[in-house]
Parts: sequence; C-alpha cells; structure tokens
Amino acid sequence: MKERFERYKKLIISELEDFFSEKYTGNNSINEWGPDLAARLKDFVSTGKMIRGCFVLASYDMFKGRIDSEAIKVASAIELLHSALLIHDDVIDKDELRRGKKTIFSQYEDIGKKEVFPESRHFGYSMAICAGDICIAHVFGILGNLNVESDKKKRVISLFSDGLDWTGLAEMDDVYLGFTKKDPEEERIMNVYQYKTAKYTYSVPMMAGAILAGADDETINLIDELGGKIGIIFQIKDDELGIFGDEEEIGKPVGSDIAENKKTLFRLLLFESASDKEKEELENIFGKKEIGKEEVNYVRGLIEKNKILDETSRRIDSLDADAKRILHELKIDKESKDFFREFMDYNIHRKK
Amino acid sequence: MKERFERYKKLIISELEDFFSEKYTGNNSINEWGPDLAARLKDFVSTGKMIRGCFVLASYDMFKGRIDSEAIKVASAIELLHSALLIHDDVIDKDELRRGKKTIFSQYEDIGKKEVFPESRHFGYSMAICAGDICIAHVFGILGNLNVESDKKKRVISLFSDGLDWTGLAEMDDVYLGFTKKDPEEERIMNVYQYKTAKYTYSVPMMAGAILAGADDETINLIDELGGKIGIIFQIKDDELGIFGDEEEIGKPVGSDIAENKKTLFRLLLFESASDKEKEELENIFGKKEIGKEEVNYVRGLIEKNKILDETSRRIDSLDADAKRILHELKIDKESKDFFREFMDYNIHRKK
Repeated sequence: MKERFERYKKLIISELEDFFSEKYTGNNSINEWGPDLAARLKDFVSTGKMIRGCFVLASYDMFKGRIDSEAIKVASAIELLHSALLIHDDVIDKDELRRGKKTIFSQYEDIGKKEVFPESRHFGYSMAICAGDICIAHVFGILGNLNVESDKKKRVISLFSDGLDWTGLAEMDDVYLGFTKKDPEEERIMNVYQYKTAKYTYSVPMMAGAILAGADDETINLIDELGGKIGIIFQIKDDELGIFGDEEEIGKPVGSDIAENKKTLFRLLLFESASDKEKEELENIFGKKEIGKEEVNYVRGLIEKNKILDETSRRIDSLDADAKRILHELKIDKESKDFFREFMDYNIHRKK
Repeated sequence: MKERFERYKKLIISELEDFFSEKYTGNNSINEWGPDLAARLKDFVSTGKMIRGCFVLASYDMFKGRIDSEAIKVASAIELLHSALLIHDDVIDKDELRRGKKTIFSQYEDIGKKEVFPESRHFGYSMAICAGDICIAHVFGILGNLNVESDKKKRVISLFSDGLDWTGLAEMDDVYLGFTKKDPEEERIMNVYQYKTAKYTYSVPMMAGAILAGADDETINLIDELGGKIGIIFQIKDDELGIFGDEEEIGKPVGSDIAENKKTLFRLLLFESASDKEKEELENIFGKKEIGKEEVNYVRGLIEKNKILDETSRRIDSLDADAKRILHELKIDKESKDFFREFMDYNIHRKK
C-alpha cells in the first residue's frame, strides 16, 4: 500500500510542478505574486500526506486497471482544493504551524514583519485569503479543461462544487461550535465530521476516480458510503492524535484542539463522564489560549481514567464493521479489496 | 439603457432566488448555515448594481439577439463570484459597510456579539471566509451544469478561473501596496486596476456572453480590450467617488480609501504635485484610522488646487477615445453600439 501511495504521490507532485511552471513562469503572471505563491504552494502541497489525490488514483486504478493523465489532473485538483481549504482554515484557527512548517498566512506575516507593517498579522491573513481563492480558481480551471467525455466532466465538476459547499458549511458549524458556550449533541458533532472531513477526504476523491473510470451508479453510491465510514474514523483518530500524538509526527502543537475548544467527540465524552469537580477543571482548560504540558497531561489522565478510548474504539469498530460490509458488496477485484483493507487498518492504527 | 439593465437585473435576481431555494430548502442543506447564508446572499446580491451580470446578458443579447436560460445562469454565476470576492475583500479591508448595509462578516460578528463570544470579530471573519468559499463553489457548480456545447462550457469555465486567478493576484498586490511604505509607480497601479477591476468587471462578463453566443475570436479579443478600457475608467471614477462622492449614494464612508492608504492614481498624482509641506500633511492623513470631515476636505482642497481632476480627466479621455475606436471596429449593430456609448457616458459621469 505504502509503495503504491508513494508512486501516486510522485505523479501528482510532478503534475502540479508542471502546472505551476506553465501557469506563472516568464510573462505568464500578471505580477510577482504568481510565481511567489506557486513556489509556496509547491512546497505546501508536497509535504502533505496527499491522501485525497492518492484516493482519486487508487479508485480510478481499481476500476480502470491503469492510471492516465486525466486522472492525475483530477488528483492534483483535489490536492489544490485541500490546500485552499487548509490555507483558509489556518487563518480561521490562527494556526501558525502546519505539517511542521509555517502556514501560508504566517509566511506572509513574516514578509510584513520584515517590512515593519503596523499589522503584519492582518496582512498575513489577507494574503492567505487571496491565496486560497486563487487555489480554488486553479481547481476548477483544471477540471474545466479535462479531456474526458462531457458527462463525466460535468459530474466531476458538480462533485467538487458540492464538496466545497458541504465542507464550507460544516466548517461554519465547526467555527460556531468552537465559539459558542452551548454544548452540541453527538449527532451535530458527527454531522461536522461527516461533511467537513469524511465526504471531502474520502468520498469525493474516490467518487471522482470512479466517475472518471466509468463505474456504475450503484458502485459510486457504495463508494460514497464507504468513504463516509473511513472518513469519520479518520477524524476520530485525528482528534486522538491531537491529544495523544507526537508533536513532531503530527506537525502541529499537541493540545491545539483543546486550546481552540474544538467540539470533538473526545471532549463530549469527557465532559459527559466527568465528575462536577473534574468538569470545573476541564472548563478551565478547554479554550485556554496557552495549553501547557501539565494541562495536556491532566486531560490525557482523565481520558484514561474514564476509559474514553474504549468508548471511541467501540465507535470506530462499529464504523469499521460497516465499512467492511460495504467493501464486501463492492464489485472490485481481490487486490483492490486488499488494498482497502490495508488502508483501513493503517487508518485505525496510524501515528500521524 | 437603464430600462434594459433593470430588465436584466430582474432576470438574474429571479434566477438566483430559484437557485438558492432549490439548493438549501427542506432536506437539501446539511445544516442550518445553508439557508442562513442563502438569505444573506440573496439580500447582498440584489442590492448591488449587477454590472457584471448585466454585461453578460448585454453582450449575449448583442450577438444573439435574445436572452436565454443558459446566459442568465452565467450572469448569475458572475454575480455570485463578485459576491464571493466582496465578502472576502471586506474581511481584508475590515469594511463594515457595503452598499449601505452591513457586510457579511459584520453580520456574523453581530451573531457573535449577541452570544457574547470573546472574539466576535474573528468569528465574523471566519464565517465570511467560509461564506466566500461556498459562493465560489456555487459559481463553478452552475457553470459545470450549463446546457451548452462542451467547447463553449470549457472556455467559459477557463475564463472564470482565469478571472478569479487574476483578481486574486491583483488583490494581493493591492493589499501589499496598502501596507508598504514604498510608493508604487503609475504602471503598477494601472496593473492593479486592470486585473483587479477592469478584467473581471467588464472583460470577463462581456467575453463570457460573446463566447456563449458563438462570437468569433477576433471579436472576443476586441471585447476583451474594450472591457479593459471601460474598466480602468470605472476604477478611476470609483476612486474619485471615494473622495468626492456622497456617502449615501456610494454606500460606504467617504474617505475610507484614504484611511486604508489605498495606492490610488489620485494619491499618486497628489503626492507628485504636492509641496514638501503639503506632502508632510498628506502623510499624516493617508493611513490614519479615523478620517474626519476636516481631513477629507483638506484632501479635496489640495486635489482642486493642484488640478488633479484635470490630470485624471485627461487619462479618462484618452481611455475613452481608445474605447470608442475599438467600439467602431466591432462588428455589431447600431443599437448595440448606441447602448455601449450610453453606458460609457454613464460610466464617466456616474455619481454612485
């Protein structure tokens, strides 16, 4: 599986390099910010896991038995869409680190600091808002120019548009839930997981690959469902790594979700199981700007004491069982099923 | 001309109403933010001048002799793109008023204030960043679903993608120029005007209409050029209204460009013509957070004393002469030429 992903990743990176070198080199850019952004994006994209792009190719490969140029373009497009969303997300969350490197707004903020701008932070935010928009422009520019049957193109563009719509709306709810004092029900948290993460990380890429490869509607629906299950597991694991992970491995400060008071499943279960005294303590920690080792350790301790990981594992197991049932139904060859099983295993046990 | 614009506007508003009522009503929205945003957007879009949407239809009408559903969809798409850019632009400029109403981030900020969020301003920014992204999703969703020949669709999507790319890059330069102490050359200011305003306000909409109507490449190129000329005049007039306009008419505080230290042509010419003492005074005014009546009057007085309006009029006249030459070359009927001439006249003499 790893080898396959590495192969896919190389294809996508090379496609994106070609794209940007054509787009902004020589007289092709209207100003200096084009090549500047292209260099930052190339770097930004290539340090990611590229799960989304790889899943476009894995899905296409599964149904078509090969990879071709148009599938690689769609894979690059989803990675650009992901970059756009991360660039905007980092402004929203004020995150200065991503994948162990400075986020895009933080890079532009540094330019502002160098020139001693009075509000270099807002300069960084502003440039990053534009950068994200430009990324989205490229996404649809690439899709519009695909050399595939017009019905496939139409469906892929629709899928990307819906994906961006859903992710944006779920992000709005996630932002709201991060600010409000109201505690959401589990159902609402799951809705955010479904639409902010699962749909666009797994369902959309796999569906795009399947549409391009000409898979039938029943298969595409199954793949949509499968992606939903894998994606929610992915998000629960992401939350877990945000508390228990290794800072170097996950590329962002441990405890940042706690500082942002993200309404995660962990937080919900923790508050539900806590005593009044513990709740009071937790309320002082969640949403606190600076989360130190001590606070992270307190939260970790309480999660262990109250067996929250057993609770989340139960949910993961149930989602995993659903996913396996769907996988069984899918009309794909044994090799592809093995690939999925291996990925699902990695997804549950990953450390980053 | 006005009557024609009113007719076009009605068609676009009704199309957008249909679009949003289908998109987010009943079970069609993943959460409550869909219908919430749709209501805000409907209101936001319909209070605008809708120049861009109307120019799609005017251009299509000119070449095709009628309006149809697909042209109206493209017109709605450009208005949604414009809304997206304004929503993000208002975050960048921290503008609380637009078209005499609260900007989108400011509306969400109010929700935050009501719930006593600690940072309701950043909550507003975050929600508006998502809202803009969702708007862009709709733009390409609409274009991808157009019922036109695939080559036309491909070219229109490309045009919109390039338009968003150019506007984003020019906005980056505009942001940078607003922060930096360096004074840009006129050429750089004109580049921002060309790509931040002219291209996407006039060239892109008119080209989109012409492409849909099946106009030949030579005509499309002429229209691109014509849009560039009209658009730069539009921007120079916009700058003028930002200083000399009526607050109620222009829908935003007079002097906000001065407060933001926008690197406009007016500012450049003013600094070039000012004495050392005046320059010192101007440096104290431009970029000052709160611009009072006194400061606006000082700037107005100096513009009059140094005959800056003569200078900008000369530029406008030269651009207008270019535009008229291009219009003469265009193979369109007399009625269409009259329509353009009337618009160009309005564009130069408008008060809002």
